[in-house]
Amino acid sequence: MSRPLPFVAEALDLSHGHVDLTHGAGGRAMMALIHHVFRQALGNPALDAGHDGAVLPAVPGRLVIATDAHVVAPLFFPGGDIGCLAVHGTLNDVAAMGAQPLYLSASFILEEGLALADLQRIAASMGRAAREAGVPVVTGDTKVVPRGQGGGVYITTTGVGVRREGVEVDGARARPGDHILVTGPIGDHGLAILCAREALGLATPIVSDTAALHGLVADLLHAAPEVHVLRDPTRGGLSATLNEIAHQSGVGMVLQEAAIPVRPAVAAACELLGLDPLDMACEGRMVIIVAAAAAGRALQALRAHPLGREAALIGEVVADGRHFVQMQTRFGGRRLVHWLAGDPLPRIC
Amino acid sequence: MSRPLPFVAEALDLSHGHVDLTHGAGGRAMMALIHHVFRQALGNPALDAGHDGAVLPAVPGRLVIATDAHVVAPLFFPGGDIGCLAVHGTLNDVAAMGAQPLYLSASFILEEGLALADLQRIAASMGRAAREAGVPVVTGDTKVVPRGQGGGVYITTTGVGVRREGVEVDGARARPGDHILVTGPIGDHGLAILCAREALGLATPIVSDTAALHGLVADLLHAAPEVHVLRDPTRGGLSATLNEIAHQSGVGMVLQEAAIPVRPAVAAACELLGLDPLDMACEGRMVIIVAAAAAGRALQALRAHPLGREAALIGEVVADGRHFVQMQTRFGGRRLVHWLAGDPLPRIC
Repeated sequence: MSRPLPFVAEALDLSHGHVDLTHGAGGRAMMALIHHVFRQALGNPALDAGHDGAVLPAVPGRLVIATDAHVVAPLFFPGGDIGCLAVHGTLNDVAAMGAQPLYLSASFILEEGLALADLQRIAASMGRAAREAGVPVVTGDTKVVPRGQGGGVYITTTGVGVRREGVEVDGARARPGDHILVTGPIGDHGLAILCAREALGLATPIVSDTAALHGLVADLLHAAPEVHVLRDPTRGGLSATLNEIAHQSGVGMVLQEAAIPVRPAVAAACELLGLDPLDMACEGRMVIIVAAAAAGRALQALRAHPLGREAALIGEVVADGRHFVQMQTRFGGRRLVHWLAGDPLPRIC
Repeated sequence: MSRPLPFVAEALDLSHGHVDLTHGAGGRAMMALIHHVFRQALGNPALDAGHDGAVLPAVPGRLVIATDAHVVAPLFFPGGDIGCLAVHGTLNDVAAMGAQPLYLSASFILEEGLALADLQRIAASMGRAAREAGVPVVTGDTKVVPRGQGGGVYITTTGVGVRREGVEVDGARARPGDHILVTGPIGDHGLAILCAREALGLATPIVSDTAALHGLVADLLHAAPEVHVLRDPTRGGLSATLNEIAHQSGVGMVLQEAAIPVRPAVAAACELLGLDPLDMACEGRMVIIVAAAAAGRALQALRAHPLGREAALIGEVVADGRHFVQMQTRFGGRRLVHWLAGDPLPRIC
C-alpha cells in the first residue's frame, strides 16, 4: 500500500554507540534508530510503511487481543532474551484464548545508555522469533527514558488473532471429571532467570523453555476440540494458574505429584534454594483442561509435536465449593497447592 | 461469554498503600490490585472475564493496529495525566490511519513505591477517557519493577480499529497543490509539560490539549473523502510531522507563519525559553493534507466540531525534489522549517 521512506537515515554506530534521549524524540535520530535497528530486524511491508499504525486485511472470525509487558532481567539469559520472550509471551496468550495469532505490535521503552549493540541483538532475536512463528510485527513505538528511570529495555507486545467458530476455551469452563494436562516440564524459565541473575554456577545449566505454542495449540484443538481451558503458567507458575482456573470455574482439582514433569536440574535447584517448582514460571508450556473422554487424543496430539513431547496428564478436576487445588504427594499424603500472594522474584518475564 | 471472577479479592489500602513487587507477581496480591484498581476504573465484560486476552466480535473491514508507550513526567499535568493521555494518544494514532477505533489494550509497568492513590487516580482518568471515547480497554497486563528501575508508571496502549472501504489516507499521498490544515492551536501539550516539570509560574497557565480526535476525523472524512494524509503532530511537533510527510510523499511544503494558530501564552513562553512552537508536541491536534478542491469543505466540517473550532489552513504542498518544508514568515521572508535531530524534552508523552 505504502512505500518505504525514501528518506536516507543518518548513520548510527551500532558497535559502540548507546541509546540517548534523542532516539525517542520523534526527530531524525529516532528515524535513524528505527531504520537501522528495528526495520532491519523486524521489517515487513506493514512496518516499512513507516506510519503511526498498520492497515491490514479484514480478519475472518472473532478477534482476539492480548497484551504483555516484558521487563525480564537480565536481558539475556540461557535459552533466550527479552526479545524472543516478548514475542513468545504474547503469542502464547493469544494461543491460550484458542486463537490463531496474526499480528504483533511492539512498544519499546529504552533507558538512556543502553548499548545499541544489545538493542540490535534483542531486535534480531525478536525478528527471528516472529518469523519462526509466522506472525509479523506490523507496528511499533519507541520511547527513551532518562538513565535511572528504566531497566535497559522494556518491551510491550500486543497480539491480535482470530478465533474460529466453535472454539470455546475459557478459564470458566473446567468441569468436575475433566483431565488436567501440561505440555512439558515446569519451572525451567523461572530457574533459568534466577540462576542467570544470581550467577549460580550449577553443574547442569538450566535453560529457559521460552517458545511459541500456537502451532502446538492448533494441533491440539484439531485433535481434541473438547478442550475446555488453555492457559500458560507464567508468573506464579502452575500453582497460581491452576488456583486461578479453579476460582474462575468454581471447581477443585487434585494433582498427582509423581505425574508432574520436572527436570532433575530444576528439582535439584529448587531443593537447594527452598523453592517449589510448582511456583516457578514457564514461558513455553501450556496447561490444558479437557473432557476426560478426549484426554487420550489430546495427549497423543501434544506428544506428536516437538514442543509437546514430554506432555503429561497431571491430575483431575473435582467438585469442590472451596475451590481447593490439592496434590497427592509422592509419599501418599495430600497437601494443598497454595496460591501465593506474590513471587519472590521480580522481573521474571 | 465468561463470568467475573467469583474470587473475593483481598483488601488493598488505596489511601495510604504503595505498589510493591508482589503486585506484579501473578499471585493473589496482583489479583487484588487488578480487582480494586483496574477493574473498578476500566471494567467492561471483556476485561471482567479475567483472562490473558479478550475475545471480541468479528470486525467488518480492514483492521488497523497502533501502539504507543506513554512515559510522560510529571504523571499529572494541567489538562490531564498519563492515564487519559495513554487513551488519547493511541486513539489518535488509529484515527490518523483513517480508522474508527474499536478496542484498546493497556499494559502497565509500575515502579515499586508508587502510591496506590496515584495509580487509582490514573486508572480512573483512563476509564473516563475510554468511556468518553466509546472505546473500552478490553485486556491488560501489569508488571512491577523494583524502585529505581521505572518512572512511577509507564503505560503502553494498543488500539485496534476498522477502516472502511474507500478510505485511503496515507503519509505517502500528499500531492503538489494539496492544502495543509491543522485542527487547532499547536504546542499546548509540550509547553504544559515543560511548565509543570520546571514549575514555571506563568501568568496564564498553559493547559495540555490532550483529546481523542476520532470523532472529529470521522466528521472530516464524511465531509471530505478527498483527505490524502492525516497525522497527529506529537513528539517533534508540527515541524517533524510535516518533514516526515514531505519525505514519505516526495514533495515540498510552504507554510504561512501568520496562518498557524498558536495561543498567545504558548507563543510568549516559547519566546521566553527560546523554543519554536513548531517543534512543540500536541496531543489533541491533527494535521490534514487534502485536495485543494475539498479544503473548504474540510475546514467547515472541522470548525463545526468542538475539537476543531480553531482549525486553520496553514499552507500548501508544492513540488520539490529536496522535500523542503519552508515557511513564509510574518515579515515576508522565507525560512526552512527544520526537522530536528531530537527534542530537548524527554518524557513528553
